[in-house]
This record gives sequence, structure tokens and C-alpha cells, in this order.
Amino acid sequence: MIGVIGAGACPPTIEELAAEVGREIAHSGGIVICGGLGGVMAAAARGAKEAGGYTVGILPGPSIYDANAYIDFPIATNMGHARNAIIAQTAEALIAVAGGYGTLSEIALGLKMGKGVVALGCELTIPGIRLAVSAKEAVRQALTLIRTSDARTIMV
Amino acid sequence: MIGVIGAGACPPTIEELAAEVGREIAHSGGIVICGGLGGVMAAAARGAKEAGGYTVGILPGPSIYDANAYIDFPIATNMGHARNAIIAQTAEALIAVAGGYGTLSEIALGLKMGKGVVALGCELTIPGIRLAVSAKEAVRQALTLIRTSDARTIMV
Amino acid sequence: MIGVIGAGACPPTIEELAAEVGREIAHSGGIVICGGLGGVMAAAARGAKEAGGYTVGILPGPSIYDANAYIDFPIATNMGHARNAIIAQTAEALIAVAGGYGTLSEIALGLKMGKGVVALGCELTIPGIRLAVSAKEAVRQALTLIRTSDARTIMV
Amino acid sequence: MIGVIGAGACPPTIEELAAEVGREIAHSGGIVICGGLGGVMAAAARGAKEAGGYTVGILPGPSIYDANAYIDFPIATNMGHARNAIIAQTAEALIAVAGGYGTLSEIALGLKMGKGVVALGCELTIPGIRLAVSAKEAVRQALTLIRTSDARTIMV
Repeated sequence: MIGVIGAGACPPTIEELAAEVGREIAHSGGIVICGGLGGVMAAAARGAKEAGGYTVGILPGPSIYDANAYIDFPIATNMGHARNAIIAQTAEALIAVAGGYGTLSEIALGLKMGKGVVALGCELTIPGIRLAVSAKEAVRQALTLIRTSDARTIMV
Repeated sequence: MIGVIGAGACPPTIEELAAEVGREIAHSGGIVICGGLGGVMAAAARGAKEAGGYTVGILPGPSIYDANAYIDFPIATNMGHARNAIIAQTAEALIAVAGGYGTLSEIALGLKMGKGVVALGCELTIPGIRLAVSAKEAVRQALTLIRTSDARTIMV
Repeated sequence: MIGVIGAGACPPTIEELAAEVGREIAHSGGIVICGGLGGVMAAAARGAKEAGGYTVGILPGPSIYDANAYIDFPIATNMGHARNAIIAQTAEALIAVAGGYGTLSEIALGLKMGKGVVALGCELTIPGIRLAVSAKEAVRQALTLIRTSDARTIMV
Repeated sequence: MIGVIGAGACPPTIEELAAEVGREIAHSGGIVICGGLGGVMAAAARGAKEAGGYTVGILPGPSIYDANAYIDFPIATNMGHARNAIIAQTAEALIAVAGGYGTLSEIALGLKMGKGVVALGCELTIPGIRLAVSAKEAVRQALTLIRTSDARTIMV
């Protein structure tokens, strides 16, 4: 389970990057977990579906019907931004595609929880974060981080 | 998405009832959502898997590896009993199989949110709850409640 | 810290009962914790303020300005009904004054967490709940439950 | 209500800075809200108490008895890192004193929610954050941000 995080509205180039990340995750047998809304979240889920993968959306609002059309399993938390903590807690690694303050909070929560975090399409100087230059590389780095960090131990 | 709620430890007869509920949900094309741990939760998920369905587990703890073996999509909330609210919010109807205080809290939250709630294998006198005498009847009642209550409207 | 739980809208007699509970809690040196909105929550907080006590409101919404006028310390959870779990977790005992499904969920969560729960002005047949016939008796029972249950141990 | 955020363990110079922030908040009639544990959180609460102010602690764990000795009103969320969102939601402005990933998540959540955020004793280059060079200046900036941003509107 790999979290794809990013803004709910973004330019087409970022959306394409997110879709590629989704496709790569599905190709490697992973599940995409995201915030379930638009922008990067919808694009990543769309990419995963195109490649035959599964998608989980952790929604901030009260209704599963607010999920974008590419979410297989919507979870209605009704907890606003606190749902970011659930994404970081559930994902075994996070890939940030551009993004704003909400994404930054998820990156910080992920790092705090000991999860590997890879950033793509953004210039971030947060210690502990890995930078990637392509979707393929981002997913490969995320998978390596999961394997080497022994997520099973860290998460408990 | 139908929530199956009940105790984390229960006698074999209750487990069998929960497994039947899981099978019936999967047979009718539904997804089982539950608390992801043992007892009724594990039995319902097992039943759903036996019938080829999908299962989602909303866990109280910090690790997706605490989910029982029949959960396809574990969500690690790390929010303790507050995760009961997420189950009630996400499920389109709830089926309670016996259960204790935790189950009662989910029933109450479900009714508060306007969801249909069916009780099986327990004697509850809460106004608004439906009683069923078999797994098949419980699932049929839950499906009818979803259709007639127009959950899409109520949940928003 | 004693939780006072009940409906957000209620008849004047129930409001008066809640206000008396608030006054009794403040008189015995306790802090009222409640959901921060109207009905029983506002009346209990008003009672506590009349008797010189402090009040904490755990709000379901995003703004501390939604608290009723008698809340000294409003907490904006933006977590909807999941905030009920925070009230039950924080209170050392709960007093339910009448109430509906929301109150029932808090009662159940409190009992699940091992907290003493006293019901006033309602006929509930939940095992483990204590019934009281007056505000004074309800608060006295709640204080006894806190002392005898050694809440410090149970809550951890 | 001003949030003071920072690491749970920190060097004495940072603790002294946090205590000064707490004192300044209390002097200007504000309430300190923090995470309720050690390090910056305990120091800020201690400072506020020394200056006769009130303190609220939003705890990650299940027990109010885990709060530091300077917390008047402990809230036991049992929600782990998701409690950071409650601090950001409840505070009208945030002052970050040094801090690590947890603090960064609170800063990001605060900015996302439209709250003013002031950083003290740390070099952060997050757009939207204000830097202060003394506790007095940090509190003055936070108060100005609350007044000018019309927090009542933004928070709803």
C-alpha cells in the first residue's frame, strides 16, 4: 500500500505525473491509497485503475459518494484534515507529487511515523525526504524504502 | 458497502452466524467493512472471502499488520474507539451480530447518521433497529434499507 | 472532569435537570466536559458557570466560535461524531441526562473504556449503567465511581 | 487561544524560549494550547502558569494523567498524531518553537486551515510562515495575525 499525496487541484503536467505514479504502483502489484478527491488524488487513482490495480480513498467528508470516479474503496472519515494522519499511518511509503500545505502535513506525519517519503515534481529541502526525477524512479525508491526499513517493525 | 459489527471474541455459533453474513453480503455483490480484528470481524471477513467478495478493515491501532488474515484492505487509523465512527460513516448499512459495548456504540452512531441497522443474534430494544432471525434475512433487510433510505442523500 | 451528555435540543425540564447536574459538579470541585453545543450541553455548562466552575466543550465542527456561551475552553475537533469518543476518553465518569442516539453512543463508549456511567431522567436497561433519580444523586454516584474504580489505572 | 508547538524533548535554551512564549501569552490574556506532553509543550505550559494563565493539553494517548504537571485542562484524544489536527483547528494562531517532523505537520495543518503561524528559534523557509527573533515578538505577531485575519471568519 503506497500513499500518493498532492494537491486537490493541479496543472495537467502534474496530473500526468501522478497518473504515471499510479500506473507504476499498480504494475508493481501495489495498492494506491490517497485522499480520494480531485487533482493528484484522482489522477493517481486513474493511473492505477488503467493498469489494473486497486485504489483506496480516505475522504475528509461524511459521504463515500464524494470520492472521485477511480476509487474502489472509499472511506468516509468525516474528520477533515485529520484524515491525513490515517493516510500516513496506513501507507507503507508515501510519494508526494508537487502539492501544498496539506501535502506537507502528510509528508511530515509520514516521516514522524518512520515511513519512507519520496518527492516528485517538487523542490523540498526537508531532511529525510528522497527526491525522484520520474514516476518510475519514485515508485522504485518507495518500494526499496519499504523493503529496507522493515515497515512491519517500524509501524508498530 | 455493508458494515458487520460485533465482539472481538465470541462463541463458535456467533462466529458461524457472522461468517454467513459475510458470505451473503459477498453473494449479493457487497463489500464487507468491519473493525479488522478477531471474533465477529474475522468471521465476517472470512465468510466474504469464501464467497469471493472484498473486505475492508478499519483498525483501531497503528499498524495494518494487525488486521486479521481475511482483510484485503486494512486501514490503520490509530484512533482507538473513534474508529467506530469511521465504520458507521462509511458503511451504507450496518449488521450487528451479537456484540457488547463497542458494538452498541457503532449501532448508536449508525442510527444517529441515518444508516439502517439490523441486529442478528441479539435482543436489543433500541428504537429504529431492525431484528433479523437469519444471516440471509439480515443481509436482505440491510440491502432494502440502503435502497429505500436513499443513502446517497442521507449520508451527505 | 465529569462528562455531561445529552441531546442538543430538549424540553425545559430536562434542561433544568442538566443545569442542576452542572451546578452540583462545580460545587464538588469538578470540571464539566460536554459536547459544547445546545440543549443538555449548554444547560450543564450554564449550571457549572453559575456555581463558579469551569467548562470544557469538545465540538464536532471546525470552529471554537460554535461553542455555547457557557464554555470556557472550546476544543474544535472537526471530527463530527468521532468527537464523542474524545469526551468519553477524557471524562473520568459520565452523566447522561435523557438523550438520543448520540448520547447512547457516548454511554456505550464510556462503558467500553471502563468509565462509570450514570443515567438521569431516562429509562435505560444497559448492563453496567447506574440510574439516578436526582442531579445531586447522579453527581454523588459519579464521584463514588471515580474514586472506587481507580480511574487512573483503568484509563491507562 | 494560542497554540505552542515544538518537540517533546529539547535543549534547555529552547525550553527557556518556550517558557517565555507561555508567559507572554498569559500576560496578554491568552490561553496556551499545546500537545500536553514534555519538552516545548511542558515549558510553554509552565511559563503560562507562572504568569497566571490557563493551559489546555491535547494529548495523543488515552489518559488525562499523561499530561505534564502544568496542564489545567487535559484532553485525552487517544488519536496519536491526528491530535495535531485538533491543536491546529482549535488554536487561533500557532507559535512553533524549534521542533521536528511533528511540529512541521502542525505548521502545515495550521497554514492549510488559514491560521497565522509564527516560527521562533528555527530556520524554516515555508511560504506563509512568519519568523520571530524573541518570545515577545512571536506572541505580538501571533496576536496581530489573529486580529487582522479575522479568525472568526476564516475558521468557519
